[in-house]
Amino acid sequence: MAERVSVLGASGYAGALAARLIERHPAFELAAVTSRSDVGRSLAELYPHHRVDRVLEELDLDRVGDAAIVGYPHAASAPVVSELRDRGVKVVDLSADFRLRDVAVYEEWYKPHPVPGLISEAVYGLPELYREQIAGADLVAGPGCYPTAVILALAPLARAKLLEDVVIDAKSGVSGAGRAATDKTHFVTVDENVNAYGVPRHRHTPEIEQELGVPVTFTPHLLPLDQGELVSCYVTGPTADVRELYEEAYGDERFVELAGTPPGVRDVRETNICRISVHRDERTGRVIVFGAIDNLWKGTASQALQSLNLMFGYDEGLGL
Amino acid sequence: MAERVSVLGASGYAGALAARLIERHPAFELAAVTSRSDVGRSLAELYPHHRVDRVLEELDLDRVGDAAIVGYPHAASAPVVSELRDRGVKVVDLSADFRLRDVAVYEEWYKPHPVPGLISEAVYGLPELYREQIAGADLVAGPGCYPTAVILALAPLARAKLLEDVVIDAKSGVSGAGRAATDKTHFVTVDENVNAYGVPRHRHTPEIEQELGVPVTFTPHLLPLDQGELVSCYVTGPTADVRELYEEAYGDERFVELAGTPPGVRDVRETNICRISVHRDERTGRVIVFGAIDNLWKGTASQALQSLNLMFGYDEGLGL
Amino acid sequence: MAERVSVLGASGYAGALAARLIERHPAFELAAVTSRSDVGRSLAELYPHHRVDRVLEELDLDRVGDAAIVGYPHAASAPVVSELRDRGVKVVDLSADFRLRDVAVYEEWYKPHPVPGLISEAVYGLPELYREQIAGADLVAGPGCYPTAVILALAPLARAKLLEDVVIDAKSGVSGAGRAATDKTHFVTVDENVNAYGVPRHRHTPEIEQELGVPVTFTPHLLPLDQGELVSCYVTGPTADVRELYEEAYGDERFVELAGTPPGVRDVRETNICRISVHRDERTGRVIVFGAIDNLWKGTASQALQSLNLMFGYDEGLGL
Amino acid sequence: MAERVSVLGASGYAGALAARLIERHPAFELAAVTSRSDVGRSLAELYPHHRVDRVLEELDLDRVGDAAIVGYPHAASAPVVSELRDRGVKVVDLSADFRLRDVAVYEEWYKPHPVPGLISEAVYGLPELYREQIAGADLVAGPGCYPTAVILALAPLARAKLLEDVVIDAKSGVSGAGRAATDKTHFVTVDENVNAYGVPRHRHTPEIEQELGVPVTFTPHLLPLDQGELVSCYVTGPTADVRELYEEAYGDERFVELAGTPPGVRDVRETNICRISVHRDERTGRVIVFGAIDNLWKGTASQALQSLNLMFGYDEGLGL
Repeated sequence: MAERVSVLGASGYAGALAARLIERHPAFELAAVTSRSDVGRSLAELYPHHRVDRVLEELDLDRVGDAAIVGYPHAASAPVVSELRDRGVKVVDLSADFRLRDVAVYEEWYKPHPVPGLISEAVYGLPELYREQIAGADLVAGPGCYPTAVILALAPLARAKLLEDVVIDAKSGVSGAGRAATDKTHFVTVDENVNAYGVPRHRHTPEIEQELGVPVTFTPHLLPLDQGELVSCYVTGPTADVRELYEEAYGDERFVELAGTPPGVRDVRETNICRISVHRDERTGRVIVFGAIDNLWKGTASQALQSLNLMFGYDEGLGL
Repeated sequence: MAERVSVLGASGYAGALAARLIERHPAFELAAVTSRSDVGRSLAELYPHHRVDRVLEELDLDRVGDAAIVGYPHAASAPVVSELRDRGVKVVDLSADFRLRDVAVYEEWYKPHPVPGLISEAVYGLPELYREQIAGADLVAGPGCYPTAVILALAPLARAKLLEDVVIDAKSGVSGAGRAATDKTHFVTVDENVNAYGVPRHRHTPEIEQELGVPVTFTPHLLPLDQGELVSCYVTGPTADVRELYEEAYGDERFVELAGTPPGVRDVRETNICRISVHRDERTGRVIVFGAIDNLWKGTASQALQSLNLMFGYDEGLGL
Repeated sequence: MAERVSVLGASGYAGALAARLIERHPAFELAAVTSRSDVGRSLAELYPHHRVDRVLEELDLDRVGDAAIVGYPHAASAPVVSELRDRGVKVVDLSADFRLRDVAVYEEWYKPHPVPGLISEAVYGLPELYREQIAGADLVAGPGCYPTAVILALAPLARAKLLEDVVIDAKSGVSGAGRAATDKTHFVTVDENVNAYGVPRHRHTPEIEQELGVPVTFTPHLLPLDQGELVSCYVTGPTADVRELYEEAYGDERFVELAGTPPGVRDVRETNICRISVHRDERTGRVIVFGAIDNLWKGTASQALQSLNLMFGYDEGLGL
Repeated sequence: MAERVSVLGASGYAGALAARLIERHPAFELAAVTSRSDVGRSLAELYPHHRVDRVLEELDLDRVGDAAIVGYPHAASAPVVSELRDRGVKVVDLSADFRLRDVAVYEEWYKPHPVPGLISEAVYGLPELYREQIAGADLVAGPGCYPTAVILALAPLARAKLLEDVVIDAKSGVSGAGRAATDKTHFVTVDENVNAYGVPRHRHTPEIEQELGVPVTFTPHLLPLDQGELVSCYVTGPTADVRELYEEAYGDERFVELAGTPPGVRDVRETNICRISVHRDERTGRVIVFGAIDNLWKGTASQALQSLNLMFGYDEGLGL
């Protein structure tokens, strides 16, 4: 008996990929794909390479099915999620609305929260850190793409209380900026270019700090490539053999790879894998950790499926 | 005594480059830069790399100066050009409005022509073909970017009546599609991709046919690069030693290069040069001619300057 | 009982991908991966994204298993294939050595053929044209990447005797040029560039002409992208409703898609699919057919698996 | 009376650009272009876009002229520079051989120094810091490309003794890796990828530390673009209004731009300009400084010309 899963906001990059992953999933059945902007258009026309031959519909809350992946913008998501939960629909939400446990922090970085009462029900959807909680959850907050890579890259140090003076220099492909056609995403703007953005306050910062427990300087850069995210993390201080901490933390994780050399985003393209390398700069005493993910896969859509698998008692890698 | 030249529609890619070329031109003085969409913004902010520290203004017909380069869309351009001509302002128009001598052809491919009476005054602004007429003109129609490359690539064969069964497969970088942010110009759409567009009727076709005097099949493709246009032209039939025709035609042209191997668009990036190579496929009897230009330079803005130089009696390469 | 399949020359792009496809194939078992240049290195190190944790070995003809995919260069391949056949190993050869039925044609375009006697045993490995012959074959010649796209794009017209004056303008990503690091494959040479090569005699021409039965002008171009190949085919003459011919030919083919708009190579990236669109230029009477494939997948490795599936009686799409 | 200037090692990216800049320089005359690997080949053939119609020669020390720009590899350069100096030829050396004042540091990071006695004669060729010394020098050590950007980005803080806990995350286009065709510079390796290299010890580190006077963690990354380098510098501590320090330092520098938003490498492409922005992260107290240059221009060749202009008493921007 397949669970029926809908994707709300399936016309965006992450939503469309989620729809594809569900449609080919051995256990789930794709119930509906909805869109606020492209109702009536076919996903196969918008994204030929996904080959999901489904028409985008208006949202009908009564036909969502057993679960939903919600790809709405921040603050637009929470009210819909609330209605879905009222109907007993399990939700993985891709927006920021349920990532931050402290509503005051949310409202400092985003805007007034539409449904603050629901926040406490949500589990942070990073299976490598919250596997059991996700398995028991009805509402999962899919992490931001940058936080996914950063938190996986630094969690072993955070747990060992070895994080100090954290500088994170992040690099992302353009799909991370979403499907909206703007000056920033115009080919001519991005091609043969690289620059930082969101300086010095990018909204993924509080999410990273919540999970790592220390203040960080987080600076993203836009690169001339499509999918892929690399985070370069600089930490002062650890003298222990930190490599061992990583092997303990991730030795049994099938979606985290420890590499001997700095990972490239190509190594993880179109996978649910985070590839990490750890280096020690003996001269300055700093530890440098690199983490590479595909922002649309492990950074968003495939990680949502990983959580959904857990929520329904399946092997977390099913269909990935 | 410098002539004062304005650029109308300077917020577009071609207009902005024209403004830069005029500002650094040893004879011309940049009078004003105007925009219909970005009044009040600085060109230096929109296009930092051009380093033209001028604010975009509303058009004031009385302050245009001695000449104008007009970068307006098709049909929007002609009425403004007409007013400029009424005031005695010399014009190089970058739209299609004065390229086609036959108004019926224009109206078949575009829309009703706003000022058909002005068409006969215009000279087609390809200096290598119409140098003397341009020198005596007050209104010059800047050729389309594709037609510039195609006509230069095939004119020697056209003159010798050797053109037959012409197939033109053209490849362009994204700047040719203009500054508008759309699904088509989104980085993620273009990156790692190539496809044809405007099939089977692209608007540059009649312009090419007018100048070459034969029907052509013209098919453009969009490539993942910024500036640059390559046209691959396939012609049936010529048995003469066509290479000689090219040397005669272009031996003295400083902005046309004859190369022994197929040109790349990199070879001409940010130059006013069209680089051409001619090959004969002995097996099929076809002649293959490649032409490479920078679509924003020789394809538009620098070629406009080349014409403007001629119109004011300067060396045509001044400031290029 | 899984058949054991080896990949010879697995350190090249196509061979490495073939190894990955076999390793994850539900029926085949990856016996060995061999290399002439990288013995002792791990495929996982050379191509992290393939995640094939196998060490490249010297070729040991006695340990190849039931079948081999051979990724050797032209003329180097035939002698090895001959030895494999002597041992009863079924072979899909990726070189040009068995593609051309006429040894004289091979020797005109390549070099003296090392094992001409074996040519007649080989079947041309394009399943959409030679499905039954492949199913009964012990030796299959994997088509060139360009010929795969061109032949699929034009076969319906060829069968209907509607091919005349054929011009093929092809565009390929850099992986088509192979793994060798040369001036031509240097990032700085290719980036922001496009140019033709192999003019006017590219070696894929005779293969195309053999299958289509008419002379063609074939001109490939190198594009700044990794995987993907687009062929733009221009044909004079057909007056029939050619679209119908394509629906008849490919309506039941799961790896050929007919699209209403010109396909992009992104649409088929990392798939075994050839996506085709057909257009008629009423003005000139020409028919334009576009075909897009992934050169490493349908153009080489996944198509080899498609043949191998047929050769062993499996569903041709198994594991693809 | 033009000074005659040769470029040694003109077949490399930087040397070829230097040759182009000299050939079009209003005061200098290009005496000879030499190469160790491509003698007899034409620069116009190797680099069509530079349009320098000169043949690469063997080095003839007696025909070098008044000055030389030397583009040889580390350790190969010093002996040639020594011979040139013996003949009274002024030199701008692009290798690392004369950048480090302490020979022990050089030998720790490179190899035994072939001519240590000459080090003390050399001036570090960053005109914004050593303008007067360069004007009086006969031997100038052109800075590394990364150090150029980093030192300009951080010098105002260094002078004010405000540098502490310096982390530098650098991003470079592929031309920075040079013309050698290797696995690392293959298009397919770089395209759609980003990764760090030289971790944790890149050879530009000691040069940066020498000029800034503090230890730094310096980590370069390779990006899928041709020319351009961005350095993102993270500094702990300064509480002063550092923006003012930058205005004092660079207000009169024509080749340093202070921008209000993070610079992109496109902003400085093919210019001698370093574009800098300074930001304060109030939350963590860190200062973030970005510096963007064209690695082949300000990072190497045009900066060498800037020094050469000074060495011969010309305006430092002549011909740039």
